[in-house]
Amino acid sequence: MNTLATDRVRAALAAIDAVDRPEIWLTIRSTEDLLAEAADIDARAGRGEELPLAGLVLAVKNNVDVAGIPTTAACPGFAYLPEEDAEAVRRLRAAGAVVLGATNLDQFATGLVGTRSPHGAVRDSRRPEYISGGSSSGSAVAVALGLADIAIGTDTAGSGRIPAGLQGIVGIKPTLHVVSTDGVVPACRSWDAVTILARDLSTAERAMGVMAGGARAWPADIRLAAPTRPRVAVPAELPELALAWAAEFGRQVSRLEASGADVHPIPIDLFLQAARLLYDGALVAERHAAVGAFVDSAAGDDGAAGLDPTVAGIISRAGTLVASAYVADTARLADLKREALALLDGFDALLVPTAPLHPLLAEVAADPVGVNSRMGTYTNFCNLFDMCAVAVPAGEVEGSQFGVTVVGRTFDDAVVADIARRIEVTPAPPALFAAGTAGSTGGEERRAAAAGRPWPLAAGASGVPLVVVGAHRRGQVLAADLEALGGFWAGPVRTAARYRMVALDTQPPKPGVYRSDDGAELVGERWILSEAALGRFLAVLPEPMLLGSVRLSDGTTAVGFACDAVAAATGEDITHHGDWLLATAATSATPAGSGRETVGHRSHGAVRDFLVTALSRGSYTDSRRG
Amino acid sequence: MNTLATDRVRAALAAIDAVDRPEIWLTIRSTEDLLAEAADIDARAGRGEELPLAGLVLAVKNNVDVAGIPTTAACPGFAYLPEEDAEAVRRLRAAGAVVLGATNLDQFATGLVGTRSPHGAVRDSRRPEYISGGSSSGSAVAVALGLADIAIGTDTAGSGRIPAGLQGIVGIKPTLHVVSTDGVVPACRSWDAVTILARDLSTAERAMGVMAGGARAWPADIRLAAPTRPRVAVPAELPELALAWAAEFGRQVSRLEASGADVHPIPIDLFLQAARLLYDGALVAERHAAVGAFVDSAAGDDGAAGLDPTVAGIISRAGTLVASAYVADTARLADLKREALALLDGFDALLVPTAPLHPLLAEVAADPVGVNSRMGTYTNFCNLFDMCAVAVPAGEVEGSQFGVTVVGRTFDDAVVADIARRIEVTPAPPALFAAGTAGSTGGEERRAAAAGRPWPLAAGASGVPLVVVGAHRRGQVLAADLEALGGFWAGPVRTAARYRMVALDTQPPKPGVYRSDDGAELVGERWILSEAALGRFLAVLPEPMLLGSVRLSDGTTAVGFACDAVAAATGEDITHHGDWLLATAATSATPAGSGRETVGHRSHGAVRDFLVTALSRGSYTDSRRG
Repeated sequence: MNTLATDRVRAALAAIDAVDRPEIWLTIRSTEDLLAEAADIDARAGRGEELPLAGLVLAVKNNVDVAGIPTTAACPGFAYLPEEDAEAVRRLRAAGAVVLGATNLDQFATGLVGTRSPHGAVRDSRRPEYISGGSSSGSAVAVALGLADIAIGTDTAGSGRIPAGLQGIVGIKPTLHVVSTDGVVPACRSWDAVTILARDLSTAERAMGVMAGGARAWPADIRLAAPTRPRVAVPAELPELALAWAAEFGRQVSRLEASGADVHPIPIDLFLQAARLLYDGALVAERHAAVGAFVDSAAGDDGAAGLDPTVAGIISRAGTLVASAYVADTARLADLKREALALLDGFDALLVPTAPLHPLLAEVAADPVGVNSRMGTYTNFCNLFDMCAVAVPAGEVEGSQFGVTVVGRTFDDAVVADIARRIEVTPAPPALFAAGTAGSTGGEERRAAAAGRPWPLAAGASGVPLVVVGAHRRGQVLAADLEALGGFWAGPVRTAARYRMVALDTQPPKPGVYRSDDGAELVGERWILSEAALGRFLAVLPEPMLLGSVRLSDGTTAVGFACDAVAAATGEDITHHGDWLLATAATSATPAGSGRETVGHRSHGAVRDFLVTALSRGSYTDSRRG
Repeated sequence: MNTLATDRVRAALAAIDAVDRPEIWLTIRSTEDLLAEAADIDARAGRGEELPLAGLVLAVKNNVDVAGIPTTAACPGFAYLPEEDAEAVRRLRAAGAVVLGATNLDQFATGLVGTRSPHGAVRDSRRPEYISGGSSSGSAVAVALGLADIAIGTDTAGSGRIPAGLQGIVGIKPTLHVVSTDGVVPACRSWDAVTILARDLSTAERAMGVMAGGARAWPADIRLAAPTRPRVAVPAELPELALAWAAEFGRQVSRLEASGADVHPIPIDLFLQAARLLYDGALVAERHAAVGAFVDSAAGDDGAAGLDPTVAGIISRAGTLVASAYVADTARLADLKREALALLDGFDALLVPTAPLHPLLAEVAADPVGVNSRMGTYTNFCNLFDMCAVAVPAGEVEGSQFGVTVVGRTFDDAVVADIARRIEVTPAPPALFAAGTAGSTGGEERRAAAAGRPWPLAAGASGVPLVVVGAHRRGQVLAADLEALGGFWAGPVRTAARYRMVALDTQPPKPGVYRSDDGAELVGERWILSEAALGRFLAVLPEPMLLGSVRLSDGTTAVGFACDAVAAATGEDITHHGDWLLATAATSATPAGSGRETVGHRSHGAVRDFLVTALSRGSYTDSRRG
């Protein structure tokens, strides 16, 4: 990112004035503060300081603390002035992002519509008579209009995904609590997640890699990528979707299949039952536990607190529920989760529409609760089941922007991002501001352009580089083993010039590598595996293959393959090819007999000579650190 | 276990008659059924069927389903007749254990005293005027008296540990839900655990390895043992303990230190606060969610249901609690857990007294609620914090049996068992029945006699064997690296006669191993590591060390070490010693010069010859499976 923070801040402030959408912002920081902070970022970046988000401007949903900005959760009477940034904000700022201000939301993050605010409804970025979606309404529209590059949202029942879907942007709803909720006004503490909104997935992933970590530990066997042919489940029925919307979802499924995914329908009923549990059951008591004391006390003050009547009604009623009913519904939820996730056995993820409809402001006003609950049909179950999700833009329907969401198991954040990358359609740059990325469709070139590594690695998940030179290279016969282990393909590498390579008489054929001072650079590829995946891989590695430290041409080391002494001695030397694929091509390109000559068939006498040469020269000084 | 099931059943039935403790049993199966089932077990064992629990008789707490025995939870009106065994029972029976019958308990597992039952109080096994402890009262006394070898208990606030402590036996309270609770009457569904009671730890572990698994998945980085010098926290104060009891706890701490543990006091307040949350807060609503509907309806029936008045009062009041208070207490509990577990950073476990006192039946009758809550001082927090625990007998105080409990983090079940093994004092065989193990104190010999492998491995946790021949052998300089990874030392092994060994010029000194057809058997040791620990180990393994498949003298394979080709060529051959420790002893025993002669210093010419011999002979046929 080469944009100067100061330039970006000026452009953002100009765009904020130009769009005339006052309902987006509850607070905008002073131009002086913004430019001073931006100048500091530019100076530090100029000094070479590592600031991965330098040049990006950030909008923060106003239920998340920003030092010096009143946290209101869109309820003026609830306001308090935080002295410290929320942990999520602190991390983004430390990486160079500049906070523009605080955005409007459905009060206490209770709603999916964006209309439940005493500061006025946040309107759709393109058609102001439509809703923006909520509760992260201001954050989503700010990003959609190009006023901010990234925005913090929160998501309990869909508040980070629904507005992303309706505004044609990306929303990452990570696994619960991998982003700290310290400094966030709780909605339902058990199921609250801090989310990122951005115009493209790679920017959202970059921000999430900075914002997450330190809260909930990643598992040692985390999956870091989806396989090249992922198995994706889709709903067998699409309740709440009008025909045109269902047809558009079908078109997106076809695009996903065209990208090489293996798609199958599953019954969705159990997932939707969890959604109903949230609205019709006792689980909503969490909302009263969060802010009920305030709402109950403010309810009698004739509106001085600025309570939204719909929100206040929901929260007050939640205070009358009985504890044993809550416990029973929690048990019911656990049963539903077990049964529903069993339907996903063998699948890498579930693809659903993000929002099932895009209502007019008037439609929500006419039926505030009914329309709101319809909005959450395909989002409510996610956090209740401790799943992760990525909402991406994917076309238009009836003038509305259409979004789909890839939902995955707990901690499969890298897997769902990988699959979402296949579908993402980046919108054209916002009219008012041209810092967006050019529109393009998903597919291989976009996947290649991915953030470089899965964001959970940046956020503290364990990953070990494994360098392969032969049958585990991408497209080769054993690459599937690494994909099945959730391995992430991180690109081509070359070893240092200190290894020799022989052709092993294994099935399937493999190269054998051993260290030698008259060695050469070998072409290979780097994968990243979780620690558990690497251990699992080693546990079943057959003789004569070995794993240990290999040095690369860039001076770094990684785990890599070697073969044992017998294999090294008896295999046919193919070091001069420098690349196992070239060596095999050369062999298969010529008849067996002459082929052997081509790569130099070695008698035992020749084996003796080459070993003596290779091994008697073996200097050992560089290994004493062992 | 060579005891015939039929003999064991007859002895158990005779002992049950002899002890005249009718309050222990709510149901005893017919002698015909028992002998028929036992005969079947003996026949199958005779045919060589693998039945690890053959010859053991089992008592089952009557809140756990046994097909054909009414499940009453000690409330006659609640009784139902299960058609299937609970999953925990099914697993133990499938392994050869014979179910004798169902045991008495504090009604609905609500109590730690053993007196809350319409079938009468279960009395202490040695002094009938004292309580047995509960709620798994009948199960504990049945084991203590030798009527059963193992018994199933349940434990929410200490019901599996308190009676074990007072009855001088072992109680394993595993990590929540690693044992399925299917077929168990819930007490507090979120915190219920199925436990094992036995007279010695190795029997209890053997049963737990069979009973657990299939419910909650083990993590890929599970720790499989405690280090040889574990760091153990103890409470800085001992509330509720009389002076003599505190002194006895101090004596046990000294024994633990004498065994090589590193013991330090920590403040215990946060742990005790969680306990109070359970009794005085809204969390008890879980009891109403479990059986409240029945209790409320039966409360008006003038005692026909056989409700215990204390239990009924607790459960009925729990039905009046408000959901948002429950949610708030759950959040408070999460905060307490985080703060309390932070105190355990750097510790392997926490040692506490199991029960703080041993009351008379009369004392409990005089203050049923007060005494009961004092009993749970050191047990209540455990399940609330999702910790695991092992209660072991450890001496006597004022005529009572004294027990201590080792408490560990989630999934550290193998670690706490390993530490408990240092303290366990197995009681002398029960007077009436001599199948108990001889009394002995803890320590090295007992640890060596341990179940062979940690019970979580038997219950499905991942473990990979790693064979070491040099500096990672127990007592050697790098063994600590494997201990830090939670590795379990599984004993000595020998490799197949196909490896050569050289002395590497590394710091610290290591042997280098490579495959060769003129190789020899090498002495080594087998560790078992989790998949993640193995991956973590490989990730930092320095050149020239390599890991891969090695074959052992028993024909099995394991992951083992090799060295790279340069190291193999330049290291000094020490294969003829067959054991790195002998080789190093020989070297250090003689002056460098002659020492070199002793092990045969090799010029490059000699290196050439030996490599040619070793490598040109290399048959490769057995490696094509690669």
